[in-house]
Amino acid sequence: MALVAGRKTFAAGKTLLLRAGVWLGAEAAARGGNGARRFVSQRVLVESDVTAGIATIKFKNPPVNSLSLEFLTEFIICLEKLENDKTYRGLILTSDCPGIFSAGLDLREMCGKNLAHYAEYWRAIQETWLKLYLSNMVLVAAINGASPAGGCLMALSSDYRVLADNPRYRIGLNETLLGIVAPFWFKDVLVNTIGHRAAEHALQLGLLFQPTEALQVGMVDQVVPEDQVQSTALSVMTEWLAIPDHARQLTKSMMRKATADNLIKQREADIQNFVSFVSRDSIQKSLQVYLEKLKQKKH
Amino acid sequence: MALVAGRKTFAAGKTLLLRAGVWLGAEAAARGGNGARRFVSQRVLVESDVTAGIATIKFKNPPVNSLSLEFLTEFIICLEKLENDKTYRGLILTSDCPGIFSAGLDLREMCGKNLAHYAEYWRAIQETWLKLYLSNMVLVAAINGASPAGGCLMALSSDYRVLADNPRYRIGLNETLLGIVAPFWFKDVLVNTIGHRAAEHALQLGLLFQPTEALQVGMVDQVVPEDQVQSTALSVMTEWLAIPDHARQLTKSMMRKATADNLIKQREADIQNFVSFVSRDSIQKSLQVYLEKLKQKKH
Amino acid sequence: MALVAGRKTFAAGKTLLLRAGVWLGAEAAARGGNGARRFVSQRVLVESDVTAGIATIKFKNPPVNSLSLEFLTEFIICLEKLENDKTYRGLILTSDCPGIFSAGLDLREMCGKNLAHYAEYWRAIQETWLKLYLSNMVLVAAINGASPAGGCLMALSSDYRVLADNPRYRIGLNETLLGIVAPFWFKDVLVNTIGHRAAEHALQLGLLFQPTEALQVGMVDQVVPEDQVQSTALSVMTEWLAIPDHARQLTKSMMRKATADNLIKQREADIQNFVSFVSRDSIQKSLQVYLEKLKQKKH
Repeated sequence: MALVAGRKTFAAGKTLLLRAGVWLGAEAAARGGNGARRFVSQRVLVESDVTAGIATIKFKNPPVNSLSLEFLTEFIICLEKLENDKTYRGLILTSDCPGIFSAGLDLREMCGKNLAHYAEYWRAIQETWLKLYLSNMVLVAAINGASPAGGCLMALSSDYRVLADNPRYRIGLNETLLGIVAPFWFKDVLVNTIGHRAAEHALQLGLLFQPTEALQVGMVDQVVPEDQVQSTALSVMTEWLAIPDHARQLTKSMMRKATADNLIKQREADIQNFVSFVSRDSIQKSLQVYLEKLKQKKH
Repeated sequence: MALVAGRKTFAAGKTLLLRAGVWLGAEAAARGGNGARRFVSQRVLVESDVTAGIATIKFKNPPVNSLSLEFLTEFIICLEKLENDKTYRGLILTSDCPGIFSAGLDLREMCGKNLAHYAEYWRAIQETWLKLYLSNMVLVAAINGASPAGGCLMALSSDYRVLADNPRYRIGLNETLLGIVAPFWFKDVLVNTIGHRAAEHALQLGLLFQPTEALQVGMVDQVVPEDQVQSTALSVMTEWLAIPDHARQLTKSMMRKATADNLIKQREADIQNFVSFVSRDSIQKSLQVYLEKLKQKKH
Repeated sequence: MALVAGRKTFAAGKTLLLRAGVWLGAEAAARGGNGARRFVSQRVLVESDVTAGIATIKFKNPPVNSLSLEFLTEFIICLEKLENDKTYRGLILTSDCPGIFSAGLDLREMCGKNLAHYAEYWRAIQETWLKLYLSNMVLVAAINGASPAGGCLMALSSDYRVLADNPRYRIGLNETLLGIVAPFWFKDVLVNTIGHRAAEHALQLGLLFQPTEALQVGMVDQVVPEDQVQSTALSVMTEWLAIPDHARQLTKSMMRKATADNLIKQREADIQNFVSFVSRDSIQKSLQVYLEKLKQKKH
């Protein structure tokens, strides 16, 4: 499935639209007329500036951008396309759902399904992380909402994190609060980002940091007013794209390969761990109770 | 040696007293009458709040809470009891000796004894550390005095450190000042806590940090007025105990297992190193001179 | 091979001068009369205070103290001499060229030469680093000028870094800016110094830090007015030399051995990597263009 190259014939470029995983060609692009390609799947919105070589992925899985299997599948396809398309050198991750970057794992994928489903789900989670963490593109997280657990992981796997200065937008790996344990590779990424002691403290207590705290501990790189998150992400991206790609990519790989390999070499065991954990009766019961509560909240 | 369950029949519970490694039963507890169990050995005083699930160990090995073999033996037994007693989820470490948390290794155990004694002593030091570092309980150090060397190690092995704001209460691994080298696992714990560069700097110079410096470098988590150390430790403990035990314990183990295993897998070699180092004539002479000076100081 | 006596007959004592790698003996020293030996090679100036046990190496390879093979050869010989001479317990590294500490690798050694030359050059770079990083002496970098790339590496390999407070004196591993990648052991040293996240950020962007930033990120330990760099380095040295040598050396080795071994065990492969990288046509062309530009600048 070849990506159609943007035939930029005027200043700001064309718009390409992609639905259901297929990039729209020049004709559709022409209708866009605003100098940007656009990729639309049901849950992953991709906008791109061909001229600048920057794509923006907006998570659109309301209400909380939970990482459902369908969302992850679209996300992974999308990341693969962008990765293989030389047009794109930078990728901004942000949310289309107000107030939430991503709530992380979708508990519904972990409850009342069969073992094969749990395995498939966990493999998708792993795959998403590996694609993000090892991307050859510059990844900037424009964090415009709360980002607990898996949402935090996506932010931590970027190259730079800009967080909106809103006290409700807390970020952290809060697994212990739910009675569960963050996978070892979540931990590895956190240790790489904020150091061993701060990670131990944060993980044991399941700390969710408010913007100022997140900046101080090193969980994010910059905190800006909410309406400047996207523009800041863009100017950070410009700074990063000034670096020769090849040298930057090799450097990134040098920094991250050991951590990624740590998962890759025990990937199947990690899946088995997840499956056997999540399929326990006690865990299934807890999840059912929790999901029931969530449903009642909505009514 | 079974622990006697606290039969809490009134609001704040009972007091249990334990002497010579035996918990006192309900009768003795009743005499306490203040809602707390109490364990008294000669050198390790244990107070406990059964209701809250919190035990407090007070080091009582005057004048400086040096880690003598007798002290360590009582301490290890005490830690085992608490670890195996489901009543206790949290443990506060503090000192009963004014002005000193613990002075660390007892040089008298390292001087003028036979090789078997040195080996036994070092094994006890290792065992104490492993029990502290891998404890399933939440460990909070209420550091109400100076804590050089082995005293510092005990603090670093806790989950959280509260230090009294007194410039005389310095903390650090000052081994080089005495012409000796901190064991590699002391180093590993320090690196985990304050990072590689700060650890290299501190260890080479044998730095003892005053409270403000200790906080800044990350050697402790909080500095409070001296009369608030215990209450702060208690409220920190309450915060940590709000986290589901099992998830927190697994998380703690995930963070610490590699460091502990690093000692466990070369434990015998580490003992042999210590024995051959300490039994050298030159070291024995230095220790004798040093101990002689200490004796004269007292007179 | 002439022994030139130090003609310093005033101020602080004796002067020893050494040309072509030979220390002047006691007789010459006596004529100096100020308690200081002096070693002069063409590119590496060594001054020493025998009484204090401190040597100072001044890089003198104008205009930018680039690490040419000749410079490195003299530097390595010099380091070996000092290392093996019990007189010296401390070594200060500084520059004799105004405004520059060291510009790092000499591109002329990497361009238009044969494979054997590239291999010899890279082995010299490795050797220099290993000698600095594992030195038994206390190493203090008195950074009195810009120190990009290899210049930064020499500073990072010292035990303590004092940087002159001049905004033009930037320090960092800026390899990506030139389209190349820092060797993994440069990266290891940087991670040890400023942590994983800051290193990833700095290396990907090839950041050169101004003094204030360098202090904040932990790239240097102290920033002082330019005219106080040498005196500060000296007083820091005095502090470090107060620590018993043997304990400090073993502690330093305990902190650094794993990182050095990481290069040592794959040293030949690292050389082969460098040779095959630098001998590529594309790289040779880039280097020629770059060097041509530098030449034109001078005219």
